[in-house]
Amino acid sequence: MRIDIQLLPYPPDPGLLSNRSVVVIDVLRATSVVVHALSRGALEIIPVETVEEAFRKTKAFSPGTVLTGGERHSRKIEGFDLGNSPREYLPEVVRGKRIILTTTNGTRAFHFVSGGKEVMAASFLNIDSTANRCMELRNDLLIFLSGDEGCFSLEDAVCGGMLIDRICRKGKVFTLTDASLAAHVLFQRFESNLLEALQSSSHGKDLMQLGLEDDLAYCAQTDLFPLVPVFRNGVIKAQ
Amino acid sequence: MRIDIQLLPYPPDPGLLSNRSVVVIDVLRATSVVVHALSRGALEIIPVETVEEAFRKTKAFSPGTVLTGGERHSRKIEGFDLGNSPREYLPEVVRGKRIILTTTNGTRAFHFVSGGKEVMAASFLNIDSTANRCMELRNDLLIFLSGDEGCFSLEDAVCGGMLIDRICRKGKVFTLTDASLAAHVLFQRFESNLLEALQSSSHGKDLMQLGLEDDLAYCAQTDLFPLVPVFRNGVIKAQ
Repeated sequence: MRIDIQLLPYPPDPGLLSNRSVVVIDVLRATSVVVHALSRGALEIIPVETVEEAFRKTKAFSPGTVLTGGERHSRKIEGFDLGNSPREYLPEVVRGKRIILTTTNGTRAFHFVSGGKEVMAASFLNIDSTANRCMELRNDLLIFLSGDEGCFSLEDAVCGGMLIDRICRKGKVFTLTDASLAAHVLFQRFESNLLEALQSSSHGKDLMQLGLEDDLAYCAQTDLFPLVPVFRNGVIKAQ
Repeated sequence: MRIDIQLLPYPPDPGLLSNRSVVVIDVLRATSVVVHALSRGALEIIPVETVEEAFRKTKAFSPGTVLTGGERHSRKIEGFDLGNSPREYLPEVVRGKRIILTTTNGTRAFHFVSGGKEVMAASFLNIDSTANRCMELRNDLLIFLSGDEGCFSLEDAVCGGMLIDRICRKGKVFTLTDASLAAHVLFQRFESNLLEALQSSSHGKDLMQLGLEDDLAYCAQTDLFPLVPVFRNGVIKAQ
């Protein structure tokens, strides 16, 4: 099993995707929101790229069954039901609901890798479940970092490195690319204090300036939920 | 001064280059060859992208004044004077000569960033001189990693991280991007044994399989030469 990690968020060669498992990571905050919301009983999440598409999509469903969520410039979008803080996605709000989600980096990432054999969403919140699922699937793996407005993001790489670490500890022999080795080193550097990685990152600093430091603390927690969101036919559901 | 590092070898936005210093790194082996050859008295180095271009370019100069060098699949190119091992570029061979160089990753990198305000070549062999020159220039800095056939390469990132480390130790306040922070962490991991980084990397392993382990040991040495190669108008010369 070969483990590669794409450090920058550009569309991968579709030919490389078709026989690989793909794990999308956007720790701050799209995949943390996805994992949290599904664990709180949301029916499914539909990632869309634009605000207009979110509003249009909402109309396709019965009123009261769908919520809009996401951010632009890290803030809640005008007219949306929810922002991009996992903590907003309370059980009493999301249970049984379909969520149309649009964020700057994460939702685009799912569409970039939609050709993957199995496309999953990971954050620190479900890292061990994701590692187990990757092992079960036995495909070569591509970890896709959503990044920060087209740039490399530290917290996503550390999370990708943690996924590699968890998989490798499960005892098989894996081939790691240079990028995978690098992500593993980054994880080892921040292993004893994952929150430090989030606080050191450019996007983490932006969120702290907006008073969202509680989101960083929340998203730095590991293995809160034994759940693997899977993206298939444009929709993310719990495995 | 802002220090960024591009982790993957694709052409940067030209608008971002025009007021930045750019440092190209290809530890294994193009920029190590460039630094070594210029330190051994080569007049200048002309990086070209194709073998055909190398042969064509050679004809523009008087016989006996020019040498061809480089590799394809890490091996010397048929009909070329020199391969891509720094150790081949002996003083008695290269002194006063112009070298037409074509390699898989490094020579292309120079052309990607030719719009930089000042474009330099660095390897471990000249890392401290490069750091000093970047400080003198006072421009924002982009470190450009040549990579390995389009992919991230560990040894280049560690070298970029060492350049960041050296600059930051010189006592000014710098802004580091997430990518710069990550490269610095990678350098710190391998600081006590740079050769290990080269031996762990995918390209390093390929070279070892070809019996070129001595090139790794050579290229892992730091600060052998107090020289900064500068790429200007298609030609690399010692600063």
